[in-house]
Amino acid sequence: MVQLGPNRYGKAEVRVVRVARGAAPDGGDVIRDWNVSTSLSGDLAATHLTGDNAHVLPTDSQKNAVYAFAKRLGAVEPEVFALELARHFVDSQEPITRARLSIEEYGWTRVGGRRHSFARDGGKTRTTTVVHDDQLGTSVVSGIGGLVLLNTTDSEFWGFPRDAYTTLAETKDRMLATEVNATWRYRGTEVAWAAAFAAAHDALLAAFSQTYSYALQQTLYAMGEQIIAAVPAICEVRLALPNKHHFLVDLAPFGLPNDDEVYYAADRPYGLIEGSVLADDAPDAGLAWS
Amino acid sequence: MVQLGPNRYGKAEVRVVRVARGAAPDGGDVIRDWNVSTSLSGDLAATHLTGDNAHVLPTDSQKNAVYAFAKRLGAVEPEVFALELARHFVDSQEPITRARLSIEEYGWTRVGGRRHSFARDGGKTRTTTVVHDDQLGTSVVSGIGGLVLLNTTDSEFWGFPRDAYTTLAETKDRMLATEVNATWRYRGTEVAWAAAFAAAHDALLAAFSQTYSYALQQTLYAMGEQIIAAVPAICEVRLALPNKHHFLVDLAPFGLPNDDEVYYAADRPYGLIEGSVLADDAPDAGLAWS
Amino acid sequence: MVQLGPNRYGKAEVRVVRVARGAAPDGGDVIRDWNVSTSLSGDLAATHLTGDNAHVLPTDSQKNAVYAFAKRLGAVEPEVFALELARHFVDSQEPITRARLSIEEYGWTRVGGRRHSFARDGGKTRTTTVVHDDQLGTSVVSGIGGLVLLNTTDSEFWGFPRDAYTTLAETKDRMLATEVNATWRYRGTEVAWAAAFAAAHDALLAAFSQTYSYALQQTLYAMGEQIIAAVPAICEVRLALPNKHHFLVDLAPFGLPNDDEVYYAADRPYGLIEGSVLADDAPDAGLAWS
Amino acid sequence: MVQLGPNRYGKAEVRVVRVARGAAPDGGDVIRDWNVSTSLSGDLAATHLTGDNAHVLPTDSQKNAVYAFAKRLGAVEPEVFALELARHFVDSQEPITRARLSIEEYGWTRVGGRRHSFARDGGKTRTTTVVHDDQLGTSVVSGIGGLVLLNTTDSEFWGFPRDAYTTLAETKDRMLATEVNATWRYRGTEVAWAAAFAAAHDALLAAFSQTYSYALQQTLYAMGEQIIAAVPAICEVRLALPNKHHFLVDLAPFGLPNDDEVYYAADRPYGLIEGSVLADDAPDAGLAWS
Repeated sequence: MVQLGPNRYGKAEVRVVRVARGAAPDGGDVIRDWNVSTSLSGDLAATHLTGDNAHVLPTDSQKNAVYAFAKRLGAVEPEVFALELARHFVDSQEPITRARLSIEEYGWTRVGGRRHSFARDGGKTRTTTVVHDDQLGTSVVSGIGGLVLLNTTDSEFWGFPRDAYTTLAETKDRMLATEVNATWRYRGTEVAWAAAFAAAHDALLAAFSQTYSYALQQTLYAMGEQIIAAVPAICEVRLALPNKHHFLVDLAPFGLPNDDEVYYAADRPYGLIEGSVLADDAPDAGLAWS
Repeated sequence: MVQLGPNRYGKAEVRVVRVARGAAPDGGDVIRDWNVSTSLSGDLAATHLTGDNAHVLPTDSQKNAVYAFAKRLGAVEPEVFALELARHFVDSQEPITRARLSIEEYGWTRVGGRRHSFARDGGKTRTTTVVHDDQLGTSVVSGIGGLVLLNTTDSEFWGFPRDAYTTLAETKDRMLATEVNATWRYRGTEVAWAAAFAAAHDALLAAFSQTYSYALQQTLYAMGEQIIAAVPAICEVRLALPNKHHFLVDLAPFGLPNDDEVYYAADRPYGLIEGSVLADDAPDAGLAWS
Repeated sequence: MVQLGPNRYGKAEVRVVRVARGAAPDGGDVIRDWNVSTSLSGDLAATHLTGDNAHVLPTDSQKNAVYAFAKRLGAVEPEVFALELARHFVDSQEPITRARLSIEEYGWTRVGGRRHSFARDGGKTRTTTVVHDDQLGTSVVSGIGGLVLLNTTDSEFWGFPRDAYTTLAETKDRMLATEVNATWRYRGTEVAWAAAFAAAHDALLAAFSQTYSYALQQTLYAMGEQIIAAVPAICEVRLALPNKHHFLVDLAPFGLPNDDEVYYAADRPYGLIEGSVLADDAPDAGLAWS
Repeated sequence: MVQLGPNRYGKAEVRVVRVARGAAPDGGDVIRDWNVSTSLSGDLAATHLTGDNAHVLPTDSQKNAVYAFAKRLGAVEPEVFALELARHFVDSQEPITRARLSIEEYGWTRVGGRRHSFARDGGKTRTTTVVHDDQLGTSVVSGIGGLVLLNTTDSEFWGFPRDAYTTLAETKDRMLATEVNATWRYRGTEVAWAAAFAAAHDALLAAFSQTYSYALQQTLYAMGEQIIAAVPAICEVRLALPNKHHFLVDLAPFGLPNDDEVYYAADRPYGLIEGSVLADDAPDAGLAWS
């Protein structure tokens, strides 16, 4: 015999753009460009066992709620939006006891000296995930993704164990590059979100650029440590750092030296360093990372 | 003050192709085409705190071990490979207490009536993830990804609650399409892997095609139930099923009927249904899903 | 002073799925799953110079026409669809003198012994591009994309010139893999499209598997030659063949031989071989490749 | 009988990173991060017909030449690099009469107040393609890709013809967004490349933000016109502008107005506008766009 285990459902990747006309300090427009995903859990056994949908608010309705809340709330910080909408689903749907709201935000910068013209910031995204449970409370995990960083020096790698499969040479000077995917857990739900994001972002950049690195793990720990130091509202940081290998090309066959100048940027495989850093007094994470 | 939390590191996406020449029953070649990722955990605090790498077997060495084991083991099932290599890392590196091996396998089919010519099977991949811990034991989670299925009928959706944001019409006949991402947990490590995969794959297809569906959740549950029924070695199935919406196009403005014939295949947003099914006597999952 | 040069506009990537219910010989459903792109040219200077749209049939209308023609024409071959719709735009819009219709077709295979259940064929796509000009006539270029092929042997590479930057060793036995992107030009517009595609596909596979290859260029030429030989309605073949390098891993540092058994499948860079083969009596290509 | 048509071969996507240490005005490092593709043509019939490779400089050697020239030339503009390397292949390989060099450049910005720390600019890339033929001369086509622009207003669309498939409403105020893919042809090979790129980029942004647009075609023409006006060394501009549709969400069912505030950013299908603008005295393009 079998039984139903944990389950959830929702609408993924609702691409909503909210324009707040004239809301910038100089009277220009403000844009929020989001990719919103919703996910609901609760008393959902019947739909799995018999296809009875009496408890299943359609994912299409969830999508519509994203649009309606975008209208109602205006161009707010993504954390505010996610908190409001998560509470809405749990409060308004009796069988639903938990909602998970996740948002990716794409940034835009005004261009051309115009109030209505924008260029999209490439690469990095700001993220947030809110979990709201009617018993277990509310958590906010925000972060940054797709931020590609590189140090041309101040990185070494040596002193590692050598087994039967080790051919790697030690190095006292290497290129260090990574694509930062960082998420951080807030202690509560009353935070100055935009300022906290900016401070965490700056701490992350500072940690990367100022750490003389003997291991990417060391850089990872410095990032977590400095984010927590810079933003007291953050109690935990989780990081996944691919080691985007830049290998020195051997130019000797062509009679040329290569004094740390010409690199091959490899695609795969890549080292992958994952870790977390916690404040000593971090509260239990509960559902934050679920 | 801060502290180091859970962490791991390894080499991701080692693309190894193993040819076993003449190993097919008819004397043709056999290919194993894999994307292997390794991840090690254990006594790794020093590299995070000070950059001391004495416990850090290079990810480059891990990559080399993948190649060497591919040579030694031959064209074995991916589960066999992952089990052997996971144990190797934990057994041979004293500070390492846990290894996670993950493999994606791309299939190939002989073509042209030749023993050495192959065409790659598109789309679906076979997957496996082994976690081996020197205290907590060994787990195997295998699965299938990228399998796109569609029923042109035998699917309804109605009886759902209607809130202020519900505009969706009920339907007694809809197209149902999904891209199956399924993983299943084995009870142990002594399994006829290839036969188990084939049986789980067939059960999944049968569940999809034979379930008259009132909800994608119902189809999900049927998949899990039938996989567990077909393969006693499997005790749990986890499924993520995007609802790849096919919307009927409104042809009325052009004076044409649309009796379930012309659909628009949407990209985003999409419903996302996630759930698990367990055997009643499933043992504790331990680290299997970590 | 500046002037307007060649220009065109249209709707790209209209994802239409046409189900012909009960149309299979056994009474099962037939699916056509297409990604259709339209592009129109003609007297379009005004919209560029002043924004006057009197000649600009909206791309939204072009999209709607794709849906309506899918209804009207049924589950026809993609070439039939593209020919009809291209002629429609030129015939019905006076300022439009040329239409380009391009279709990618995704294949589906019946599964589960059911008349309504399908699994999508991964990887390869069937393609067609029709250009219809009211003065210069009509051309049809069809093809196949995303077909990944591999020979485990019967490939050599030697006898090449060696310059100051050549370090590559000669080889008398290498893995040969490519992802075929082939397009072929038909002599006319009255062709048994499905049969021609099948024959071209089979000729391509045969050429790949049966050519003992001293250069990927030689394989390319054999593909083109055999397609033209197999399908008299085809007068020209263009091929782009990336050399998907499979490099032998050096296992010597680990005390292991590697007798053409363990390969690293590289991502980038890759060799790229492009060429065309023409029948001696191929008519002028006109706009076919535009 | 069949014959060999036009053909070429080379190495695609050589990912080379060139660091010029201390070369910035303040003593910081300078990075050139490139994706280089080479393609050679000439007397290559033999390798196609018989697999005789006596004229086929290996693509591996072409890759090595990329690295060696990166060392020799330093962190030069991509056009300089492409011109030098294209000439090298034609001058040094007797059977090779034509070379095509294509480069994508990824930008990096110094961060953290450090001389060696960089963050990669997301999104947009700078491109160049050089064709050098020993008889037909040398051409340079440069450009920009992946630049996503959006105007929140100052765009209308009306006055278009309405056929049987037109349902689109006219609008006097719409969101206009596109991802610019622009290429421009230079008159010669002696150009201040960095300054020309900067001026073309700025002209493109200005044209987008300052054009009150009645059609995306009008914006396209303005971009081409202003680039040619700003950079006399440029004689032709080709643009491909996808219309990244932002559709107003209908909030009426929820009792909410939507005064151009809440949009759905669609993926597919999308309008695609392609066109070129030429200086009246533009010389013949020759092989520039091949």
